[in-house]
Amino acid sequence: MLKLSLIGIGCGDPQQLTRAAIGAINAADLILIPRKGSAKFDLAELRRTICAEVLTNDRTRIAEFDLPVRDAGEEDYRKGVDDWHDAVAATWSRQIADHLGHEGHVALLIWGDPSLYDSSLRIAQRLDPLPKIDMVPGITSIQALCAAHALPLNEIGGPFVVTTGRRLRDGGWPAGVDTVVVMLDGGAAFQTLDPKGLQIWWGAYLGMPDQIIMAGELAETGPRIVAVRRAARERHGWIMDSYILKRRS
Amino acid sequence: MLKLSLIGIGCGDPQQLTRAAIGAINAADLILIPRKGSAKFDLAELRRTICAEVLTNDRTRIAEFDLPVRDAGEEDYRKGVDDWHDAVAATWSRQIADHLGHEGHVALLIWGDPSLYDSSLRIAQRLDPLPKIDMVPGITSIQALCAAHALPLNEIGGPFVVTTGRRLRDGGWPAGVDTVVVMLDGGAAFQTLDPKGLQIWWGAYLGMPDQIIMAGELAETGPRIVAVRRAARERHGWIMDSYILKRRS
Repeated sequence: MLKLSLIGIGCGDPQQLTRAAIGAINAADLILIPRKGSAKFDLAELRRTICAEVLTNDRTRIAEFDLPVRDAGEEDYRKGVDDWHDAVAATWSRQIADHLGHEGHVALLIWGDPSLYDSSLRIAQRLDPLPKIDMVPGITSIQALCAAHALPLNEIGGPFVVTTGRRLRDGGWPAGVDTVVVMLDGGAAFQTLDPKGLQIWWGAYLGMPDQIIMAGELAETGPRIVAVRRAARERHGWIMDSYILKRRS
Repeated sequence: MLKLSLIGIGCGDPQQLTRAAIGAINAADLILIPRKGSAKFDLAELRRTICAEVLTNDRTRIAEFDLPVRDAGEEDYRKGVDDWHDAVAATWSRQIADHLGHEGHVALLIWGDPSLYDSSLRIAQRLDPLPKIDMVPGITSIQALCAAHALPLNEIGGPFVVTTGRRLRDGGWPAGVDTVVVMLDGGAAFQTLDPKGLQIWWGAYLGMPDQIIMAGELAETGPRIVAVRRAARERHGWIMDSYILKRRS
């Protein structure tokens, strides 16, 4: 039988690895490391570093492979995602067949936590034959962001929404909450909000040596974040950031 | 100067400890372990186990102390919480003064993650003199719950709300989302919802040897969870549980 472990590795700092993650890495027969062309943001280097630091099992093999490219031309967003998941599943299957055959334990190192804005579990469920799936939680960028700012995420007994940049831009401030966490925001969607009474805690490259954090009133800090974000993206060639907004209740 | 580390230790399984948490435990001069009378749910035993497993620094002292009791008779909930935070801060200060004086590095082992439904950071900010505060993220029960069920928390690109049992009971299904995470629910507040079209993923004692998980349509699984929950609470003398609800969109 085939077993697949989706191992959360945290969001950039190998010190965020849990003991369970290190155990799962060393329990694998095969670790798959995806590459996205020549892009720096494929995090392949982080995954290699982690394996070099914590892998002590001589029998664990590491295989790198190229991820299929998502069809950005597909007008139906959900269909584009669906097709891409199928293509990735086929690629995983081929790697597993080539390196393991029909039996063994394969692992993927998942940025953050495999349950949060990550498609690996959905892709895994398309594998044929379906492996036994095992998830190992990892520290998310939300947690790294709060730690970097020494910020409590929720108000006392209060709720919060976790959403995406796209939804914030299209739907405005979510109903019923004074705290909003925004992930997957390629375009600084906070600029579309009326900043009055809002505070922001922002971070990029969280947990990595290049970590940048900024916080303050959205009205004055927002434009500064936009400028810093643009400069950092140019300098690094990529950016991964997230932020928390709070409204005075 | 005084430094205080709030170290997330995960929610019950010492394997959830991160390398950063283990490093921070061993960097401390003093680890404070709170006790709540004779209650089993004070998690003092988990904290002792963790120290026994990972503490290798001979110079780190461990001090146990009794937490003040919150005045359940205070009618104003927020004032009750405020007064209790003051009392806890005074107790921490006394412990730090007794064991360290005005200088050194004190650590508290925080269940889950110090940014999520935890009062330690707010209490720490009441300390006089104010220490330098350092937060180390830890795996939360939400993450352990998703891992146990092999469940993606969000739908693709979708938002979710994290809230409390009290709010779910008082405010009903939160607006604008199809996924709701419920924490701090002493009374199975999902019973107050119309279960039609809702699914539940529930877990108690997550990450602990006594872990129980159940999932299914809320209409039929809800009443079974209520019964299992009551029996488990009687058997153990305490329960800590959380759950995720999803609505078919």
